[in-house]
Amino acid sequence: MNAEILCVGTELLLGDIINTNAAYIARSLAAIGINVYHQSVVGDNPERLKQSLDIALSRADLVVMTGGLGPTYDDLTKETVADKFGLPMELHQPSLERITAYFQRVNRVMTSNNEKQAWMPKGAKVFPNNYGTAPGLAVQQGEKIVLLLPGPPKEMEPMFSEEVVPYLKNFSNTVLLSHTVHIFGMGESAVEDKLKDYMLSHLNPTVAPYAKQGEVQLRVTASACDEEAANKLIQPVLADIRRILGNVVYGIDVGTLQNAFVQELKRKGKKAATAESCTAGLVSKRITEISGASQVFECGVVSYANRIKAEILGVSQQTLDTYTEISEQTAREMARGIRKLSGADIGLSVTGLAGPDGGTPEKPVGLVYICASCDGFEKVQELHLSRGRRNEREDIRYLAASHLLALGLEALRSMN
Amino acid sequence: MNAEILCVGTELLLGDIINTNAAYIARSLAAIGINVYHQSVVGDNPERLKQSLDIALSRADLVVMTGGLGPTYDDLTKETVADKFGLPMELHQPSLERITAYFQRVNRVMTSNNEKQAWMPKGAKVFPNNYGTAPGLAVQQGEKIVLLLPGPPKEMEPMFSEEVVPYLKNFSNTVLLSHTVHIFGMGESAVEDKLKDYMLSHLNPTVAPYAKQGEVQLRVTASACDEEAANKLIQPVLADIRRILGNVVYGIDVGTLQNAFVQELKRKGKKAATAESCTAGLVSKRITEISGASQVFECGVVSYANRIKAEILGVSQQTLDTYTEISEQTAREMARGIRKLSGADIGLSVTGLAGPDGGTPEKPVGLVYICASCDGFEKVQELHLSRGRRNEREDIRYLAASHLLALGLEALRSMN
Repeated sequence: MNAEILCVGTELLLGDIINTNAAYIARSLAAIGINVYHQSVVGDNPERLKQSLDIALSRADLVVMTGGLGPTYDDLTKETVADKFGLPMELHQPSLERITAYFQRVNRVMTSNNEKQAWMPKGAKVFPNNYGTAPGLAVQQGEKIVLLLPGPPKEMEPMFSEEVVPYLKNFSNTVLLSHTVHIFGMGESAVEDKLKDYMLSHLNPTVAPYAKQGEVQLRVTASACDEEAANKLIQPVLADIRRILGNVVYGIDVGTLQNAFVQELKRKGKKAATAESCTAGLVSKRITEISGASQVFECGVVSYANRIKAEILGVSQQTLDTYTEISEQTAREMARGIRKLSGADIGLSVTGLAGPDGGTPEKPVGLVYICASCDGFEKVQELHLSRGRRNEREDIRYLAASHLLALGLEALRSMN
Repeated sequence: MNAEILCVGTELLLGDIINTNAAYIARSLAAIGINVYHQSVVGDNPERLKQSLDIALSRADLVVMTGGLGPTYDDLTKETVADKFGLPMELHQPSLERITAYFQRVNRVMTSNNEKQAWMPKGAKVFPNNYGTAPGLAVQQGEKIVLLLPGPPKEMEPMFSEEVVPYLKNFSNTVLLSHTVHIFGMGESAVEDKLKDYMLSHLNPTVAPYAKQGEVQLRVTASACDEEAANKLIQPVLADIRRILGNVVYGIDVGTLQNAFVQELKRKGKKAATAESCTAGLVSKRITEISGASQVFECGVVSYANRIKAEILGVSQQTLDTYTEISEQTAREMARGIRKLSGADIGLSVTGLAGPDGGTPEKPVGLVYICASCDGFEKVQELHLSRGRRNEREDIRYLAASHLLALGLEALRSMN
C-alpha cells in the first residue's frame, strides 16, 4: 500500500505554523510498512482542495488528510471527500452526543456551528476525538481509502496511534514491532559511524537513527508474523546496541530524560531539588511533567538575581565576587545549598549564559556549569553549548537542562 | 504572481526531519505579496520529481524548489529542471571557483563530484551560497520561473532573504502587510462568532483567526500599492477589532503573553517574582524566554512540597491546615510571600492540581488558583482547566501559566 499525505489549512500554506503533522504521519506510516511518495499542503479553498484530492487519489491507495474538520464555514474537508465519492452527509448521533457532553463538561455554551462536526459522509468509519471536538474518519471506496484527521497535533497524534494504526493494520498481514533506544551525549553522526556496519548488515530488524533536541534515538523495527516472533528478533539487537554504544544509552522506550530521572528516583526512593539560574525553571518544569513527580520532587529555586543565590541558596558572597555567578564554584554551592534548604537526597544546579547578550571572551554565550550533589557523589560539568547560530537562547537552555538531567541520572545510579 | 513550494528529499518524505523550509519560504513570499496555493514534498526519485514539477508548473507562475542540489548521484533537481525546459547544462566558472575556495578555507579535500554543483542550466541566474557549497539558481522561461535552493535551512534561509527576495521584488507591484491581534480569554469559535459578519464583509484587509495553545490570533492582511497605503487600510480594522472584542485583546504583534508581560515590566520599570506549585517553573521559564528578562525578573520559587510553601514563602501553617494548599488563601499568601522574599514589585503565584491523579469532588483535577499582588492591586482567580481529556497535565499547566501571565499583565497595567 502506498500513501499520500494531504494537509489542509491556510495557516500551514502561509507558513504561520510548521507542518509537524506530515512528519509525524510519515514516520508512523513507515513504522507499519506503508510507503509515502508525496506530501502536499493546500489551503481552505474548495476548488484547490478538490483538485489536490483528485491528484492524490490518482497516485496513492491511501490518502491521509489533516485539518478542515472544525466547526467553521471554511472547514470543508469532509464535504469535499463526500462529494468526490458521491456520498450524502448524515448526522452521526454518537459524535453529536460526545460533542454535546464535551461542552457540558467544560461548562461552555455549544454554539450551533459545532453540530457540523458530527455530520459524516454516509458509511464512514468514525474515530472518536479524546482531546478535542472534531472526530476523525475513514472513507473507503473500492481500493481507495481516505483518512480525515483533525489538524491540531495534540488531537491528531493520539488519534493516529490509538485509532488509525489499529484500523490500518487490518489491511496488512505482517506485524511490525518497534523499540526505541534513547541516547544522550553522542551526536547522530558518531552514533551512525559506530553502528554503520551493523545497520547495513541488519535488514530485519531495521535500525534507524533520529536526532531530536540534542538527543539521538534509534528506532529498531522488526517485521514478523506475530508479536512474539518480532520480539525474538529485536531483543538481541537491543543488547548489541547497548554493548556497542555503552553508557550513552540511557534507556529503552523510556520516553525522555526527565522520565528516566523520575522513574529512577521512584525506584530508589530518593527525592530531588533544583537550583536554576539560566534555565530559570525549565529543569523543574521538565521533572514535574512526569505524573507522580510530587512524590520525588521537593522544590526548586530560580535564582536569577545574584542576591537570591546568596540569600536563599547560601552561595558565599566571596565565591560570587571571586569567580562570578557563572563558575564551577557557584554551581557547586548552588547544588549543595538547594539540597540543604530542601532536605532532598540530591541537589541539581545550573548556572550559565544563554545569551544572546552578555557574552565576553572569558565567559562566552553558551558557557554553562551544572552540578549534581548527593551522598557519595558530587560532580560539576563545564558545558559549551553555543553553535554560533542566531536565536539559540532556547536551544542552549534546553540542552543545559538535558545535560543536568543526564548528570542527575548518573548520580542516582551511583547511589544504593 | 502565485507560487508553489516543492521540497525535494527522502528524509522529508519519511518524516525524519520536519519541513521548516516550506513554512519559512511561505512566510517570506507572503511578506512580498506572492500567494502560495500549494506546497509539495517528493523524494529523490527522478520520475516522481519530474511529475511533481510538471504539476507545479501547470498551476503556478513561480515554483520554489529546495533540496537535491548536492554533489551526489541522487541529487537531481537541476538536471530535471534543465530537461523540462530543454536547456543544456554548462559549467558556471565563478561557482566552481567559490566551491574550490570553500574547500581550501575549511582545509578539506574537494572530491571530484563536488564540481557537479557548479554546473548550471544555460542562462540560469546564480545565487551564491555563503554558508555552504551548493549555489542556488533561478531559471526563467516565458511566464514561468523556477527557483532552486539548497535544502539545509541554514544555507537556504540567508540565501532567500539576501538574494532571492531582491530578485523576486522585480516581478511584483503590490505590497502585502500583516498585523497580528493577540487574544487571551475567549475561544476561537466565540471570537469568530463576534467577528463573523465583519470578516465576511472585509475582503481587503482580510481577517483570519488561528487558535494556538489556549490563545486566538487574528491575522489582518492588507494588499496595496505600497506599505503606507496598506497600513491605512489596516489601522481602522485593528481599531474595530479592539472595540468589538474588548479587553481580551492583549496586544498587537506582541508575539506571546510572556513577551507582552516582560515588555510591560520594562516599560514600567518594575520587577517580578514567581511562586509556583503545579506549574513548577513553567511561568518563570516562559518569562525568561524573553531576552533581557534578567532586568525585570528577580527569582522564582517552585514550592512543590507544602513544607517549602511554609518555610520559604511564609504561607501560614493554619492556612494550609484550614484551606489546604489548593485554595484562594494559599495562592494569596504565596504571592505576598514571594514578593516579600524577593523585594520584587509584583508577585505572581499559582497553586492547583494538574493531575492526572489526586482529584477529589471538592478539589478536582484542573482546579487552579492564581494570584497577582502588587501595590494597589491584588486579585485571586479560581480556574477550572480540565477538559476531561487524557494526558492533559501539560495542557493544564500551560493554560494555568498563561492565565497567570494575563493576570500579571492586568496588574501591571493598573500600576503607574
